[in-house]
Amino acid sequence: MRLATIRTADGATRAVRVEDDHLVDLGAADVGEYLASPGRAVAGGPAYPLDGAEYAPVVPRPSKIVCVGLNYRNHILEMGRDLPEYPTLFAKYAEALVGAGDDIVLPPETAAFDWECELAVIIGTPVRRARGTAAEDAIAGFAVLNDVTCRDWQYRTKEWLQGKTWEATTPLGPYLVTPDEVPGGVRPKVEISTALDGETVQRDNTGDLLFDPVALVEYISTMVTLQPGDVIATGTPGGVGHARKPPRYLRAGQRLVTTVDGLGSCANRIIAGA
Amino acid sequence: MRLATIRTADGATRAVRVEDDHLVDLGAADVGEYLASPGRAVAGGPAYPLDGAEYAPVVPRPSKIVCVGLNYRNHILEMGRDLPEYPTLFAKYAEALVGAGDDIVLPPETAAFDWECELAVIIGTPVRRARGTAAEDAIAGFAVLNDVTCRDWQYRTKEWLQGKTWEATTPLGPYLVTPDEVPGGVRPKVEISTALDGETVQRDNTGDLLFDPVALVEYISTMVTLQPGDVIATGTPGGVGHARKPPRYLRAGQRLVTTVDGLGSCANRIIAGA
Repeated sequence: MRLATIRTADGATRAVRVEDDHLVDLGAADVGEYLASPGRAVAGGPAYPLDGAEYAPVVPRPSKIVCVGLNYRNHILEMGRDLPEYPTLFAKYAEALVGAGDDIVLPPETAAFDWECELAVIIGTPVRRARGTAAEDAIAGFAVLNDVTCRDWQYRTKEWLQGKTWEATTPLGPYLVTPDEVPGGVRPKVEISTALDGETVQRDNTGDLLFDPVALVEYISTMVTLQPGDVIATGTPGGVGHARKPPRYLRAGQRLVTTVDGLGSCANRIIAGA
Repeated sequence: MRLATIRTADGATRAVRVEDDHLVDLGAADVGEYLASPGRAVAGGPAYPLDGAEYAPVVPRPSKIVCVGLNYRNHILEMGRDLPEYPTLFAKYAEALVGAGDDIVLPPETAAFDWECELAVIIGTPVRRARGTAAEDAIAGFAVLNDVTCRDWQYRTKEWLQGKTWEATTPLGPYLVTPDEVPGGVRPKVEISTALDGETVQRDNTGDLLFDPVALVEYISTMVTLQPGDVIATGTPGGVGHARKPPRYLRAGQRLVTTVDGLGSCANRIIAGA
């Protein structure tokens, strides 16, 4: 099953189920509200055309976005680092999110704007200290997330938050795809890639994740309750612009396409912020 | 003016204005909802007794809690560090919050549970790239926050989030006190202290903050819109348990009182988590 949050003509949003040629209303304003609703309607309400649908962030206002750094084995080893014992976690606030086709806003305050394609986990059930199947069952599905980063701000201090949470920089979508439709299920084994103006700049496989989605739900829920609609961004593979020699950063007018096979793509233009 | 969020007999909460001997209902479920409401009722509705009031976190569900590290000049210099050019920022999720008199839950997973008394800024107006008086005017008021931390988890990786956001560890309250009632106004100059079982373990003055509340609103709103009810925890002075020789950590049964003069105190018992 594929779920999405679409924008409607009145400026609101609706949660929908994506069918072959149309969208079915799920009786909630967005996928976050739908996941939190008791009983979750499955039949659905009115239909909308699939063509021309405009996607909001699949969960527009998650109560938490937990991001993971340094999580692709190949990338860690190629950087000459040891595999870490614990996941590196940091946060992003909801204002950072944009839809799968929206513009990404390049702030005038940065000179080092960079891409990071990631597999995002979306939580479906409240869980605390979940282990094993409880952690697996808490995963509602997956989406594509592009953790676009202001590298200069990220490294102003040791804590990365201030490089990671700029307004309207982080596409999330287009769909939530349930684990039964993803090769590997709750531990997806699919290609992940980024194309910048048509040139592939990142390519790896989510099977290379050191801490897989289930392990991350177990680890994070040890500390804090994961709520329906919460998002875990599982980290990015090698190929980011900052690690290149010379470094390569995003400019206004460029087009970034981030894809996770089976989950669709975010395709976003970079525009200059005010 | 003093505002609070109190718990009612039916398990809900109400935003109230605190008067000399009673509380006045403000027509909102909590102070966050009240701050976000257009026009903010000032007359108020039914009254409740002040005696026996039970305080929820003054904003129970802020959309953002932004925390600042390394922000007291004396403490930075006594640690032999240079004064930083930029504030160190990290996040905490809303599930961490408890009320001013609630128990703080010591997780069985930590062996290094530590106190951090802080001045918290509460935002009243949505602001982006606020400067000068716009940043000053965005501050609705101040409260006491205790950024209780699992030091062992904080230092598992370079990013501090996982030591900082454990469920039910962070008292916030008891009141929001408006700047006109605080010595120093939007740049408070008041004593801040922590007592552990009656022994003072932290004492400083908020006038020693390197990045004051207005500077923090300016800096953080550069990245992201600050929303009504959002919380900025401005950092803790010297005297935390982890920096002592030998280190000194919290145990179940202890009582922690964190005070910012003019803002009241949080007084919390430490209890063992499940």
